[in-house]
Amino acid sequence: MSVTIREARPDDVDALVRFVHELAAYEREPESCHLTAAQLHTALFGDSPAVFAAVATVDDEVAAMALWFVTFSTWTGVHGIHLEDLYVSPAHRRHGLARALLADLARTCLDRGWSRLEWAVLDWNTPALDFYATLSSVPTAGWTTHRVDGDALRALAT
Amino acid sequence: MSVTIREARPDDVDALVRFVHELAAYEREPESCHLTAAQLHTALFGDSPAVFAAVATVDDEVAAMALWFVTFSTWTGVHGIHLEDLYVSPAHRRHGLARALLADLARTCLDRGWSRLEWAVLDWNTPALDFYATLSSVPTAGWTTHRVDGDALRALAT
Repeated sequence: MSVTIREARPDDVDALVRFVHELAAYEREPESCHLTAAQLHTALFGDSPAVFAAVATVDDEVAAMALWFVTFSTWTGVHGIHLEDLYVSPAHRRHGLARALLADLARTCLDRGWSRLEWAVLDWNTPALDFYATLSSVPTAGWTTHRVDGDALRALAT
Repeated sequence: MSVTIREARPDDVDALVRFVHELAAYEREPESCHLTAAQLHTALFGDSPAVFAAVATVDDEVAAMALWFVTFSTWTGVHGIHLEDLYVSPAHRRHGLARALLADLARTCLDRGWSRLEWAVLDWNTPALDFYATLSSVPTAGWTTHRVDGDALRALAT
C-alpha cells in the first residue's frame, strides 16, 4: 500500500465533492449540502483562492481529504488554519490517513509561523472526539459561534 | 455627529491594536493578547492579505472596528465572513456603531454572493448576546471548536 499526501489538483474535484456529500450524510444533514463541482473548482483553483485542499492517495486512488482556509488570531497576531472538512472514504479507514492529513496541516502551520490548527466537531461524534483526544486538541470552551444568513443577512444589510 | 464606515488604512493600525488589547481585557484574558502593530500592519496591508478591517469614525476619530477573514462553507459552496473582533470604544457606545459595522459586513457578503456572516461570543457576555439577538443570529448548537497549538501542534507535525 503506497500512501501519498499532496495538494489537491483540478482532476480531484469530483472525488472531493463526493466526499463532502458523504460527510454531510454522516453528519445527518445530507439535505443541507449543496456543493457542486463547479463551485469547488472555482473556490480551489480560481483567480484568488481562499480555500485549500490536501488529499491522501492510496495506490493513486484519492482516499481522504482535508479542506481548509486561513484564519487570523488577534491574540497571537498571526494566521492559522481552520479545517472545514476532514474525510476518509470508508474503504480506507483505520490506516492513519486522517492523522497523516492533520500532520501535514500542522507542518504547514509551523513552516509559515502560524499558531493554530482548529476545526469544529459535532458533540455526538464520539469516534471523532476519541481520535482528536489522541492529538491533545483542546475544546474552546465558553465560546459559541453565532451565524446570520438568508433573510436575517438581508435584513441586517439594509 | 458625523459617522463614517470605511476600510481601515495603515494610519489606523495603532488604534486597532489598542482596541484589540482593550477587547481582550474586557474578555478577561488581557495576558493572552500579544498583537503588535507590526503584526497587524503585515496582516492587513502585506503582499497577500488574508485579514481585513472596517472602522467606524465619529467626527474623523476612529471609534469602532470590525476585523474579519474569509471562510468557506462546503454546504453552501460559497464563501462567508468570520468576524474575529468587533469593538466599540467606550466613549462611543450606544450610538449604533456596532450595528453599522455588522450591516457593512452583511452588504459585503451579499455583494459578493457569500452566504454567511459568523462570529464567536463568550457565553457570559450578556450585553453582546442581547445585541446579537436583535439581529436574529443563530447559535450553531451542537458543534464545538477544537484547537491544537504550541507543543501539541509541534507533536502532531512530527
